[in-house]
Amino acid sequence: MKKYLLMAPGPTPLPPQVLLAMAKPIIHHRTDEFKAILKETNEGLQYVFQTANPVVTMSSSGTGAMEAAVVNTLSRGDCALVVRGGKFGERWGELCEAYGVETMMLDVEWGKAVEPSQIESALKKHPEIKAIFTTLCETSTCVRNDIEAIGKIASGHQAVLVVDAISGLCADELKTDAWGVDIVVAGSQKALMLPPGLAFVSVSPKAQELMKKSTLPKFYLSFAKALKSLAKTDTPFTSSVSLIYGLKESLTLLKSEGVDNVVKRHARLAKTTREAARALGLELFSKAPSNVATAILMPAGIDADALRKKLTRDYSITVAGGQDKLKGKIVRVAHLGYCEESDVITVISALEMLLNQFGHKCEPGAGVAAAEKVLLQ
Amino acid sequence: MKKYLLMAPGPTPLPPQVLLAMAKPIIHHRTDEFKAILKETNEGLQYVFQTANPVVTMSSSGTGAMEAAVVNTLSRGDCALVVRGGKFGERWGELCEAYGVETMMLDVEWGKAVEPSQIESALKKHPEIKAIFTTLCETSTCVRNDIEAIGKIASGHQAVLVVDAISGLCADELKTDAWGVDIVVAGSQKALMLPPGLAFVSVSPKAQELMKKSTLPKFYLSFAKALKSLAKTDTPFTSSVSLIYGLKESLTLLKSEGVDNVVKRHARLAKTTREAARALGLELFSKAPSNVATAILMPAGIDADALRKKLTRDYSITVAGGQDKLKGKIVRVAHLGYCEESDVITVISALEMLLNQFGHKCEPGAGVAAAEKVLLQ
Repeated sequence: MKKYLLMAPGPTPLPPQVLLAMAKPIIHHRTDEFKAILKETNEGLQYVFQTANPVVTMSSSGTGAMEAAVVNTLSRGDCALVVRGGKFGERWGELCEAYGVETMMLDVEWGKAVEPSQIESALKKHPEIKAIFTTLCETSTCVRNDIEAIGKIASGHQAVLVVDAISGLCADELKTDAWGVDIVVAGSQKALMLPPGLAFVSVSPKAQELMKKSTLPKFYLSFAKALKSLAKTDTPFTSSVSLIYGLKESLTLLKSEGVDNVVKRHARLAKTTREAARALGLELFSKAPSNVATAILMPAGIDADALRKKLTRDYSITVAGGQDKLKGKIVRVAHLGYCEESDVITVISALEMLLNQFGHKCEPGAGVAAAEKVLLQ
Repeated sequence: MKKYLLMAPGPTPLPPQVLLAMAKPIIHHRTDEFKAILKETNEGLQYVFQTANPVVTMSSSGTGAMEAAVVNTLSRGDCALVVRGGKFGERWGELCEAYGVETMMLDVEWGKAVEPSQIESALKKHPEIKAIFTTLCETSTCVRNDIEAIGKIASGHQAVLVVDAISGLCADELKTDAWGVDIVVAGSQKALMLPPGLAFVSVSPKAQELMKKSTLPKFYLSFAKALKSLAKTDTPFTSSVSLIYGLKESLTLLKSEGVDNVVKRHARLAKTTREAARALGLELFSKAPSNVATAILMPAGIDADALRKKLTRDYSITVAGGQDKLKGKIVRVAHLGYCEESDVITVISALEMLLNQFGHKCEPGAGVAAAEKVLLQ
């Protein structure tokens, strides 16, 4: 008998309340009863986004919502600044290019956060930039960008600031309105403790102004349609009823914990994981670590993916590996969503046992001891 | 105490097996365990689509998949023939126009099926037509189009035949390969007995050829990305894990019933509903009735929406109303998905009781009697 432990940066495990809510019979999506649920989820989303802007709920993966952020703000030939320091920064670039947007890439070394001053220089040099696309947590490298500082810079410029917070929302601090973020994209299967299948986008008045001028083609991903329905507590297309049932439950849990406490919980588990990794003599990949997941470099000679495979087979634990140039070099241990102390202890203990088997000498219990030290603080 | 009865043409009620499957803990979508589930659902979809073509599973509503059918086959300025005999035919037109496709509208009187000969004439007159967009069941009017005949016409032409079978698949007969349908779009929340949130698209080799020439912008909706992943039993973006759990269950149920029997079940319940309506002195709106739902014209002086409201309040039954020019004039009683004899009897009995209250004289029990006659055949 093995209990399955899911510690990847999405999808993440679900609280039993959310799982059971999704097993409730379907009701029609144009009834007063469902409208009352939508009213509650729309308000709950504004709470976790820390915004007074409308938050659109889409039936799609996070990428669909990223695409929506591009096609609703820009026109062919418009200039966009893309912060590219990992796979998801790259995705912003690919999305812009798919629609003929002129894309200026701000390349950042993988593992490092973008320097806000570089964004400032780019905006000064290119006042024609209409949108800045970046990430809160760049999940591929486990880097957290300084959105607060970037928001200050963008607020004095015509460009809208668009943040992929698909994995980061509620794990890393993000004050949408206070920091001046125009568009925030989030995914259901992360700190929001839901299955994949929903994405959420907040849209500021500045972004809504730009929206009116955007001529890129769209229909299903149209913010105009979504916002028009949202104003009537409705949706332009059929809602994913079961996932919305789950959303209502997860937002209730997050509200009762309090969004600041939710972020603190993630910060604490992230610190625990980092300290444990260091105590095992391991190096961390991210120079600006996110609370979403911890990227741990494997010592020379150890194939991270072989280790992950054994972690799954012998310990029934899923963690993520590295992508592209990081393939086989890192493991990414998430501490995201419905995750708590005992989960972190379990994965550290398993890593300790495995690392020795893979030839990396470390003292049994040293990682767990370091973890406990943080947890007792 | 009132048991809720959902008899709208989507979303539809779910079997308990499907509801409970969705309450299972989330597993990671890039594991062997999940790949085995995807393999089973991909094959099961081919079975219910009656096709050897690949069937793409998308996280979106049906409209997202309709949009995918447009953007993956056409280029700006291409010519498309759109059969427009209701709201969903109109949607094909709106989608084409959103992307600058030259759209020829074949307008059909609401309530009637398209004459296949009209499509034949249009194709002869306009050999430049690259795609024909139509519907199996035009849900807004409850009309079933003769896709078999249209398929025969299209097969001798360069144009691909694209069928919105979002509500129709498994309710109305559709032999994708035998009838030569290039692209079939289906939705989860209909006869497939799932919540809304997934859409499915089969893509023929002819459509895949056209796909290579299509230059309309796309990313999330890209068939190229989806088919590349599908060939490896994978998905380009994160799968809606919980909904896929449900899909596995619903396909198991449909396979064990047999796709022909599933269609027969729908045909039988549809006939039952039609005969009951006639016995109550009511007129049917559709001249080519689909098995998805039955559109019943309300007698002069009875507001269909007022009657529906009372049906919900007093009998806890949801049926659909009319859209646009049919608003207030028809009720659409669905007999779709997880629906059986007793559900049809219940809704007929409730209608009988209500109609008399609304001033339409009909003999109590006459509708149910007519229904029983069909059910005993």
